[in-house]
Amino acid sequence: MEFSLNKSIEILKTTPNTLNTFLGNLSDEWLHNNEGENTWSPYDVVQHLIVGEKTDWLVRIKIILSDTENKAFRPFDRFAHLEDDSAKSITELLKEFQKLRENNLSELKSFNLTENDFSKTGIHPEFGTVTLKQLIATWAVHDLGHIAQIARVMAKQYKTEVGPWTEYLGILKK
Amino acid sequence: MEFSLNKSIEILKTTPNTLNTFLGNLSDEWLHNNEGENTWSPYDVVQHLIVGEKTDWLVRIKIILSDTENKAFRPFDRFAHLEDDSAKSITELLKEFQKLRENNLSELKSFNLTENDFSKTGIHPEFGTVTLKQLIATWAVHDLGHIAQIARVMAKQYKTEVGPWTEYLGILKK
Repeated sequence: MEFSLNKSIEILKTTPNTLNTFLGNLSDEWLHNNEGENTWSPYDVVQHLIVGEKTDWLVRIKIILSDTENKAFRPFDRFAHLEDDSAKSITELLKEFQKLRENNLSELKSFNLTENDFSKTGIHPEFGTVTLKQLIATWAVHDLGHIAQIARVMAKQYKTEVGPWTEYLGILKK
Repeated sequence: MEFSLNKSIEILKTTPNTLNTFLGNLSDEWLHNNEGENTWSPYDVVQHLIVGEKTDWLVRIKIILSDTENKAFRPFDRFAHLEDDSAKSITELLKEFQKLRENNLSELKSFNLTENDFSKTGIHPEFGTVTLKQLIATWAVHDLGHIAQIARVMAKQYKTEVGPWTEYLGILKK
């Protein structure tokens, strides 16, 4: 499938609603259990998505679109959310994510991006030159990756309880 | 995590809502593209979930709970949905899944299952003896596996569009 801004926004705009429905009414064990040491719970994933909205995606888009010479992105701290010990409820986190995402998408739309903009570039700390198009596509795929992760982490809580069916359930082997 | 009927129902009751939010407003490419030959699109997955509600999960639960001698399950046809060429819209499919799931969960609750019931058994065509507990846990994990699959199939549509970020996006390698 070829990149399209509208198709990317379809995903980006849906994710907070999907997570709200998926996680909004679950009990603590589903929300806070993880896959073992140094892995994330569904709750942790939502915190991580919040950090991305605050510090990563739109910040980088603005660097690419800006007139400045220095197009270097700051490295994204993928573990920053683990320092958040504010003990918010999942409902508060989901609302916060929704609000941040809405604001970021409003701002993204306000740029009135055209085909010409999508090939503009920034400098990724590891990959070097990357395009706006790649960044926006990555933002959407990053959402989908974390939705899949949340489903996997929850599935694994029943790893032994499914008995012999574990053989048919590929998700328990990942 | 230990099996609990209520915790299983939390997942089973949420899945139709999650899929409705996740898929209900997406354009055709997101819904109908797959991962290549003989793989399923998000649309196909919803069809498959519908077949499971009609022919598999509750049917097997009733075999386990029945007084009959013969506790053998019929094999579940995991490809049955591919024969459905009724060309329903995703909205129709999602509604159908929601209705079937609601009815099945109502019936499940009407059995007033107790701890004693969870160890009752049926005969799986491949695994032999399986318990009611394992069957219900599998029903929930099966939902989660397909949610993860849908996210992965959609993510892969942007496999080349993310450029070098593919390296960070584990979901594109599965």
